[in-house]
Amino acid sequence: MTEHTEHTDDQSIKHPYYPQDATINGYVVSSRSSVEILVSLALMVLAVLISAFVIITRTNSSRKTQARGIKLGPLSFADKFAVYWFSVCVFIHLVIEGYFVYFNKDLASRSNLLSDVWREYALSDSRYLTSDPFTVIMEAITAVFDTAMSLLVVYGISNNSSFRHIAQICCSLAQLYGNVIYLTTNYFENFKFTHPDPYYFWFYFVFMNSFWIFFPIYFFFSSWYQLSNSVSISNHVVYSSPKNKKSI
Amino acid sequence: MTEHTEHTDDQSIKHPYYPQDATINGYVVSSRSSVEILVSLALMVLAVLISAFVIITRTNSSRKTQARGIKLGPLSFADKFAVYWFSVCVFIHLVIEGYFVYFNKDLASRSNLLSDVWREYALSDSRYLTSDPFTVIMEAITAVFDTAMSLLVVYGISNNSSFRHIAQICCSLAQLYGNVIYLTTNYFENFKFTHPDPYYFWFYFVFMNSFWIFFPIYFFFSSWYQLSNSVSISNHVVYSSPKNKKSI
Repeated sequence: MTEHTEHTDDQSIKHPYYPQDATINGYVVSSRSSVEILVSLALMVLAVLISAFVIITRTNSSRKTQARGIKLGPLSFADKFAVYWFSVCVFIHLVIEGYFVYFNKDLASRSNLLSDVWREYALSDSRYLTSDPFTVIMEAITAVFDTAMSLLVVYGISNNSSFRHIAQICCSLAQLYGNVIYLTTNYFENFKFTHPDPYYFWFYFVFMNSFWIFFPIYFFFSSWYQLSNSVSISNHVVYSSPKNKKSI
Repeated sequence: MTEHTEHTDDQSIKHPYYPQDATINGYVVSSRSSVEILVSLALMVLAVLISAFVIITRTNSSRKTQARGIKLGPLSFADKFAVYWFSVCVFIHLVIEGYFVYFNKDLASRSNLLSDVWREYALSDSRYLTSDPFTVIMEAITAVFDTAMSLLVVYGISNNSSFRHIAQICCSLAQLYGNVIYLTTNYFENFKFTHPDPYYFWFYFVFMNSFWIFFPIYFFFSSWYQLSNSVSISNHVVYSSPKNKKSI
């Protein structure tokens, strides 16, 4: 953590964010406590996980019946895990990050749960309350592209679609790319955007974001392996067919 | 273009970059003219294109002989185009952008062709001479990840590897992601990093970068289509095999 000078008695400080001279327009205090905000967020994620469970159950049920003359088995553990993960990603990218992108100009002055979520998270990174260009653009790409890809993954698993692993590798790569630049730009600036309280740095900035480092790495390599296998099988079929014996 | 005030008589100006108050350490004037720099760069790209031509010729030659009992035809126009494009990408990402990443701290004070290239390009974007955190990180990802993926594409086409289109879609997505954020962050700052001369804005900033917008879009969709086809064929084979008739 970078060193910060505390100015608790300074009347000029109008917000709790770092750097302390950051311009945050129309800042109002959240109407909910940190615990209320985190519990609300956790309940929303729980609702998404329950929805994902329903999707998995319905998918397994439909796979028991004949599909194109072929009986598919139940979803593997890896596929179920992907439905849970990418469903949560749809919610976070579209609802939470989409809200930030759409209202970034006056987020600090708004009064509702999602604004409270961002006022809380911004303690770990004030760029979310200052309409920092990189942050707004990266989040806009995330809210549009990563959401679309996450939806395609969940839909693709449910319908055994050929694009499932393509969407998965693209989503994971985009999540990794955005998050790595996001984390390292703050590091390059000596974490000047982060409140010095270790809770905000370790829990919000490091721990929360680490999900979007480790899971994308896993899903990236998993999809690479699956796609590479599929191409090998397909090439074998295409190059072995009689009409391709001479030339393709 | 944003409006700029010219201060041609101001003695405090020590470099030609915008914004004029940008801190550029140890700036020295390039020893080559703009034309010499552009011609040198063009000659290097020409050498890369000739190398790519040699790779294509050798690949076509080796595909005429039997490979795993299967005779492959000559490379398609699309594959040849990909070898040219990704060979140029390897050169630009590794040599030109890699040089920037490695020497970004004192690039403005160095005296050689690659420093001259960056002093020239930086007229369209001074962030390359100020070690702007986003620019350095984005270029570092490009120099490592995009170079590796470009190499895999060229190698993959030459050897008919199963990972070719996976590397191609990953490379193209990474190029697009980096370039879109790079271009739009300057736009969000009213192009304050760009010299007001239209030549620098339109030729260097817009035209040069547009290659890494349009070509990646084409290669992204091309690979998506190819991979999706391969997965469809592979799924058909796997789900139709006798042992999978009941369950996979």
